[in-house]
Amino acid sequence: MSAVAEVPNRRVILKGHVTGFPSEDGMEIVSGMAHLAVPPGSAVLVLKNLYLSCDPYMRGLMTKHERPSSYAPDFIPGEVLVGYGVSKVVASGHPDFKFGDLVWGRTGWEEFTLIPNPESLFKINHTEIPLSYYTGVLGMSGLTAYIGLYDVAKAKKGDFVFVSAASGAVGQIVGQLAKLTGCYVVGSAGSDEKVNLLKTKFGFDDSFNYKKEQDLNSALQRYFPEGIDIYFDNVGGAMLEAVLLNMRVHGRITMCGMISQYNLEKHEGTRNLMNLISKRIRMEGFVVFDYFSEYHKFELEMAGYLMDGKIDYVEDITEGLDKAPAALIGLFTGCNVGKKLITLARE
Amino acid sequence: MSAVAEVPNRRVILKGHVTGFPSEDGMEIVSGMAHLAVPPGSAVLVLKNLYLSCDPYMRGLMTKHERPSSYAPDFIPGEVLVGYGVSKVVASGHPDFKFGDLVWGRTGWEEFTLIPNPESLFKINHTEIPLSYYTGVLGMSGLTAYIGLYDVAKAKKGDFVFVSAASGAVGQIVGQLAKLTGCYVVGSAGSDEKVNLLKTKFGFDDSFNYKKEQDLNSALQRYFPEGIDIYFDNVGGAMLEAVLLNMRVHGRITMCGMISQYNLEKHEGTRNLMNLISKRIRMEGFVVFDYFSEYHKFELEMAGYLMDGKIDYVEDITEGLDKAPAALIGLFTGCNVGKKLITLARE
Repeated sequence: MSAVAEVPNRRVILKGHVTGFPSEDGMEIVSGMAHLAVPPGSAVLVLKNLYLSCDPYMRGLMTKHERPSSYAPDFIPGEVLVGYGVSKVVASGHPDFKFGDLVWGRTGWEEFTLIPNPESLFKINHTEIPLSYYTGVLGMSGLTAYIGLYDVAKAKKGDFVFVSAASGAVGQIVGQLAKLTGCYVVGSAGSDEKVNLLKTKFGFDDSFNYKKEQDLNSALQRYFPEGIDIYFDNVGGAMLEAVLLNMRVHGRITMCGMISQYNLEKHEGTRNLMNLISKRIRMEGFVVFDYFSEYHKFELEMAGYLMDGKIDYVEDITEGLDKAPAALIGLFTGCNVGKKLITLARE
Repeated sequence: MSAVAEVPNRRVILKGHVTGFPSEDGMEIVSGMAHLAVPPGSAVLVLKNLYLSCDPYMRGLMTKHERPSSYAPDFIPGEVLVGYGVSKVVASGHPDFKFGDLVWGRTGWEEFTLIPNPESLFKINHTEIPLSYYTGVLGMSGLTAYIGLYDVAKAKKGDFVFVSAASGAVGQIVGQLAKLTGCYVVGSAGSDEKVNLLKTKFGFDDSFNYKKEQDLNSALQRYFPEGIDIYFDNVGGAMLEAVLLNMRVHGRITMCGMISQYNLEKHEGTRNLMNLISKRIRMEGFVVFDYFSEYHKFELEMAGYLMDGKIDYVEDITEGLDKAPAALIGLFTGCNVGKKLITLARE
C-alpha cells in the first residue's frame, strides 16, 4: 500500500427533502477531502467520477417517503446525491478491479467516491465507443428501453408503437429499437426542435409537439387511425389518459416513468382505465434494476447497433460539477435535448 | 315440419339510451308473439328461456358509444335486451340440437327467442346440478372468476388475495377458488349481511364492509399488513386507488369490472398509478368472452367442486319477467346478495 494521498473532493449535497417542484437551491456544492486509498484488507474501491447521469427517477428520492421505496433508498439531507455514472478505479482492494479500470454503476455526485460493494459495478469493455455512452445508451437508459420494449411490451413486427418523451434518454432508444423490429413508431416531445429530431435523426415514422395540441385524444386519433398496440409511457398524466382511449384490443402499456407527475404535491388521477377491461389491455410497470442480469446480452447487441450505425444517439452534456444541480432540475422543465449528463473529467 | 304454433311472447325493451344512473323506467315490458317453429331449411333454434342472468356489464351496453364496444353490441332502443341465460330448445333446424335440449348462452330478455347462431350456445350436461347455476357459477360468472384468478392473475399458493364486491356472482367464486389454491383471502362488500356471508358461507379468511370504513387505505393496511399480491377488481374507483398503495412488489391486478363507475356521467380518475412502476405491478383487463374455448375444462372442474361440496354458491332470485328491470337496476344499488338472476320458467 502506498502512502495515503488525500485530495480535494467537491460534492453535491441535498439540503433538505423536497415537496413540489425541485430547485437548484435545494442542493449545494460542498468541499471535502477524499482518500485515494483503501483500508488494508478491505475489498472496497475508490472511484474517480468522470460522467454523471441525470435521471428523472432521482426526483422521487428527494422526497421523504413513509414507506421506503422498493428499489432505491431516498436521498438523505446533508449527504451526497447518489446516481449512475462512469468512473475510473483509482484505488482497489477488490481482486476483480485494478487501478485504471473503467466502470459504470451507482456512484456519488462528487469527484471521488468510496464504493463498499464493487460487485454492483459493470466493467466497461468497449472503449471504442464514447465513454459517456455508458451513462445512457449503453447503460441504464438503453437497458430500460430494451427491457421495456421487449420484455415488458413484447414488441413485434407490425405493432403500432407510441413513445412519450421520445427524444429523451430512454425514448430515443425505444423508438429506434422499435423501428429495427419493424414497428410503426410515433413519438411526442415538448418542443419543435425535439420533434424534428425524432424524424430527421432517429427515424421515427412521425412525431408531434404535445404542447401545441389542444386535444391529445384527437392528436392520437390523427397519428394512429388504427389505434396503438404499444404505449411506452414516460410521462403519465393527461397523455396516458388520452392514450387509453386510443389503444387497440390486446394492447400493452409499458409503465416506465411519469415525469408529468413527479413535481405535483398530489398526483393527478387517470381516467379511462375502463379501457383496460373492454380492450383487454396489459399495463405493467418495471424497474430496470431488476434486469441487470440481462445487461451483458444487451450491451453486446447495442454496441453492435451503435458501431454499425443502426442506432443514433444524442447527448446533452453539462460541463462541471458546479452546474450539476441546474442540469438535474432542467430535466423537469424539458431543457435537455437528448440524454442529460454531466462531465466531471475525461479520464 | 309441424304446423306453425304461435304463442304470446313478453319481452323487456330498452326505451332509450341511458346516461347516469339507470332506472326501471328506462325499460318496459311489451307483448308480442313468437313462432315456435323454424323456417324450412334454416339452421336456427327457437328457445324457451328459463333463467336470465343479471350482469353489471349490461349497464355499459345501455349507453350509446361513439366507438362500438369490442366485445358486445350496444343495446338498441326499442329492441329487446340481450344477455346470458339458460333455455330449452323448443324448435331446431340445427343438426346438433333437438327439441328439449337444455342450453346456456346469449339470448333475449323475453320468453321465447330465435337464435340465428346456435353454435354460440353451450349444451348443459350436468342436470344433477340446479339448472339456474348455468347463469352463474357454471356459466359466465364462474368462468370469469376462474380465468381472472388463474389465467390473468396467476394465483398460487401463499398469495395474499383481495376481492372487491366479494359476495357477488364473480367475487364469491374468486374467493373460494383462491382458498382452494392455498391463498390468504380477504373480501370487501357493502353490507354487514354480505360481509358475514363471506366468512361464514364462503370461507374467506376475513372481510369488511367498505361503507363503514373512513379510510380504505387504513382498512387495507389492517387486513393486509404484509400487502396484497393479487387484487381481483370488480369495482374500480376509490378502492382501486387505495389498493395501489397496498400492493406488494410484483403484484397483479385483475381488472374484471368497475361497478363504482358505470353510472357516473364522467368516470373518476385513479391516483397512485406510480405504484405500478415502483412495485413492478401488472394490471390487466380481460373479457371472459375471449375464453369460451376453456369452458369445458372449467365446467368439469367446477361441477366437481360443487358436487364435492368444495364450493358453495348463493343466488338471489327474482321471479318473473315483470320484475326483470328492477332486478337489473338493483345490481347498481347493491340490493342483491349473491348472484342475481330472474326465473321465467322452470322447464
